[in-house]
Amino acid sequence: MTTVSAEQQARETHLVAQVLRSFESCDNPRLLELVHALTRHLHDFAREVRLSEREWTAAIEFLTAAGHITDDRRQEFILLSDVLGLSMQTIAINNEADGDATEATVFGPFFVDNSPAIEVGGDISRGAVGEPCWVDGTVTDNAGKPLAGARIEVWEADADGFYDVQYDDERSAARAHLFTDAEGRYAFWALTPTPYPIPHDGPVGRLLAATGRSPMRASHLHFMVTAPEKRTLVTHIFVRGDELLGSDAVFGVKESLIKDFGLQTPGTPTPDGRDLTGQAWSRVRFDIVLADAARAPSSTSVARTP
Amino acid sequence: MTTVSAEQQARETHLVAQVLRSFESCDNPRLLELVHALTRHLHDFAREVRLSEREWTAAIEFLTAAGHITDDRRQEFILLSDVLGLSMQTIAINNEADGDATEATVFGPFFVDNSPAIEVGGDISRGAVGEPCWVDGTVTDNAGKPLAGARIEVWEADADGFYDVQYDDERSAARAHLFTDAEGRYAFWALTPTPYPIPHDGPVGRLLAATGRSPMRASHLHFMVTAPEKRTLVTHIFVRGDELLGSDAVFGVKESLIKDFGLQTPGTPTPDGRDLTGQAWSRVRFDIVLADAARAPSSTSVARTP
Repeated sequence: MTTVSAEQQARETHLVAQVLRSFESCDNPRLLELVHALTRHLHDFAREVRLSEREWTAAIEFLTAAGHITDDRRQEFILLSDVLGLSMQTIAINNEADGDATEATVFGPFFVDNSPAIEVGGDISRGAVGEPCWVDGTVTDNAGKPLAGARIEVWEADADGFYDVQYDDERSAARAHLFTDAEGRYAFWALTPTPYPIPHDGPVGRLLAATGRSPMRASHLHFMVTAPEKRTLVTHIFVRGDELLGSDAVFGVKESLIKDFGLQTPGTPTPDGRDLTGQAWSRVRFDIVLADAARAPSSTSVARTP
Repeated sequence: MTTVSAEQQARETHLVAQVLRSFESCDNPRLLELVHALTRHLHDFAREVRLSEREWTAAIEFLTAAGHITDDRRQEFILLSDVLGLSMQTIAINNEADGDATEATVFGPFFVDNSPAIEVGGDISRGAVGEPCWVDGTVTDNAGKPLAGARIEVWEADADGFYDVQYDDERSAARAHLFTDAEGRYAFWALTPTPYPIPHDGPVGRLLAATGRSPMRASHLHFMVTAPEKRTLVTHIFVRGDELLGSDAVFGVKESLIKDFGLQTPGTPTPDGRDLTGQAWSRVRFDIVLADAARAPSSTSVARTP
């Protein structure tokens, strides 16, 4: 760290104190806590690195470019939070381990409201390209009690690496929701997850390139599971053996979420008798355990993000 | 601070270490230092305040709104940096005290390139409304040597509180540049500075309102002064007696920059014989001292910001 004279340090800390004091009329204690902490950490950052005016300008330009590329279908600020691990840290803070409850991971920018409803055993792909994958399991509480009627949202990229919302044609594919049956069971056809890059043609992609990082995400299938009085679970399952498990661009991988996707050779009978006409397919089991909501009330607030 | 179990703390610090490690292929040492420090401070912030998912979402929405309101004439990210004191801190870091050198303050978002040229003694107002103000002084180096041909950019809001670029009609007014004469002297007519709010109809304005802060800036006149081999000076002068000196929205006020603007009653003869037909006017003296560039090379990089 650069040597900074005592006089200079005093000027800098005096300024921080002045900024903190400016919020003294704030009558929302939580907001006050947030802006105070934000002020302290921002100034600590700038003082520690001795931020140059050129770098400050570059930061302003970066945020401006991120804002301008963001629209209803592209959320560069979520990508930025994701690649800095801040999304995953927020998930960690709000979803502390609770017995056997399934671990959470990043929400990502590709969830959309009003996904199509399917029956148990239905197919979420609806035209999306990829290898068929049978997914089944149960939803239970921490005591092992099956949860009937739990809502399961699932979404994923197609084999070309794109979510439906990344296409220009308003398609809805490779996403759906279903409800567990009376025994807490669920099953559906999806696509075997494949790796893909996060959108990297914008400022976040340039940041990754400049810092020698890959934009690739490990192959995964998204879940959001809700049930009355249970903590909402936002998670993925990952594919055991995927070589990207150790370098996921958004730090989403957790050991407990890596699953065996069993590859089935063409002709292997399907669980529901579906005729795949000689195609290879895969299957995976994912048993989901929901924690009680009471343990972490703030975690039920996953808002829809564009 | 919330009590966090040792196990949970370990999960959180493990994640931070993972993010730091992801940059290990970065071959630009300064960029690596910046992204490492940014990562540490961002995660420290989120962990210290136990950031909720709702708050994270609000932050994403805030940045998105800031990006969307920003255009060629409105720079919400600079405003955000300004009201959090980060702009002023960056100025402080890059413009350490150097003998009698005039102190720097915030650049603000309203500078534009290619301002009109005026002669010494000319008028910058060019139709902008306000009380005439005669500004004069010298530009010297730290040893008191006059600097001939120093370039002085000046800009200010009109008496209605708006800069020219905030109007929709492409006007250029209340801004100009001039050069010191052979004795390092300068003089020009401007407008007596008046207080105005920073643009507060966007997310930054909502942040100020929610935290009980005023968007008002103390009355000021902007200067940017450049001369060969001297540190570029970006500063304002403020009006002694202005009641907003203690609560400037962007923390720009420094004691050394508060000047006596002497009010002249109608009919008082003007320095250059200009006929103000019975109007009141004011005058202020501002002697500028430029530090040597060698002392702080990075400070010469004040880039144009939109």
